[in-house]
Amino acid sequence: MPDEPRVFQYRGDRELVARLKRDSDLIESITQLAGEEAIYTASFTGIGALKRARLGYYDQGTHEYREISINSPHEIASCIGNVSLKNGQPFVHAHVVLADEEGNTRAGHLLEGIVFAAEVHLRALEGARLERAYDEATGLSLWEVE
Amino acid sequence: MPDEPRVFQYRGDRELVARLKRDSDLIESITQLAGEEAIYTASFTGIGALKRARLGYYDQGTHEYREISINSPHEIASCIGNVSLKNGQPFVHAHVVLADEEGNTRAGHLLEGIVFAAEVHLRALEGARLERAYDEATGLSLWEVE
Amino acid sequence: MPDEPRVFQYRGDRELVARLKRDSDLIESITQLAGEEAIYTASFTGIGALKRARLGYYDQGTHEYREISINSPHEIASCIGNVSLKNGQPFVHAHVVLADEEGNTRAGHLLEGIVFAAEVHLRALEGARLERAYDEATGLSLWEVE
Repeated sequence: MPDEPRVFQYRGDRELVARLKRDSDLIESITQLAGEEAIYTASFTGIGALKRARLGYYDQGTHEYREISINSPHEIASCIGNVSLKNGQPFVHAHVVLADEEGNTRAGHLLEGIVFAAEVHLRALEGARLERAYDEATGLSLWEVE
Repeated sequence: MPDEPRVFQYRGDRELVARLKRDSDLIESITQLAGEEAIYTASFTGIGALKRARLGYYDQGTHEYREISINSPHEIASCIGNVSLKNGQPFVHAHVVLADEEGNTRAGHLLEGIVFAAEVHLRALEGARLERAYDEATGLSLWEVE
Repeated sequence: MPDEPRVFQYRGDRELVARLKRDSDLIESITQLAGEEAIYTASFTGIGALKRARLGYYDQGTHEYREISINSPHEIASCIGNVSLKNGQPFVHAHVVLADEEGNTRAGHLLEGIVFAAEVHLRALEGARLERAYDEATGLSLWEVE
């Protein structure tokens, strides 16, 4: 039953507020933070600005990511993401909306985002190990509880 | 005094992490989840992808929703929403930003969103019954506490 | 070391759910709310609609904000923000994605947003005093803990 809904209950654990390092990759930074703080499940939001980024669009037919390069500075108008486990390690999944100097936007799955400045609020969650496993119907790694 | 600010205090109750069912409607899925879990007030965020969607834009002059059809697969670059009561039942209000294969965006009030994959973090809140009531100034159903 | 990462731990304190006042400025409203409720650190999300807005894009080269005027009603498709201290006073930093009647978007740093209707979930955080201080590398006021 690959398409049944899954609902997992957690307890709030810790609230982290972070200012990410300039020139770091946003995904790598939060992955490293999760590792250092022993965070296995979390939800986060963020705002700030990126120097450049690579976004992904997942083709629901071919099951392949199409890559979108953003080679100029953009505001992070929105960043919403989560931390769960993939192959036993903290794995960050984040989507962003970026805005240019006219306020025009580009958005999608964040593959890489080089930080100019970024303010992140991460809520660590305590509970079952939330692991990603291959889901044949979508070709994506989706949540299961071990 | 239809335009006075209203501030309501709650206590965090439960944190739910959910993977929504493929081909379900995002709004219906969260409404059903709230009903099953006896959640009357909540705040949530989500990311993922939709197969198609209908968005709304509320005309502040005529007080009518204008409907925008999105008939192709899009990433959910952002979903922010809340749960409160309307006519005594859990009611979901959500806004989304969607992104296409070029990273271009469409956004608005989510009327319907057919799920390809969706990861939602919902924070249930414990406190007064937050009910929507008709607000004449805007034509919308806005929050009051009974 | 102006570009080292900073991670601050907090405890969840209070959850506020607010309906902002029509015709107020979103930034001023949340700043005032924080002042009245003695909130020094917080994270929030919001949805709703604005009558008009001024957005900012920070030029990473010249270190100046470029202003973008939005002179018509838009949905608040996303609003993500935080509260911290600047010169000892609660200071609101928020980014928004706005959507017009076609679902087209404009986004950026929110300088001013005149509310038609707005629903905000604010999570107050208890912990160290999170103060903004001038950061020479970016020209921005970024987080330090006193």
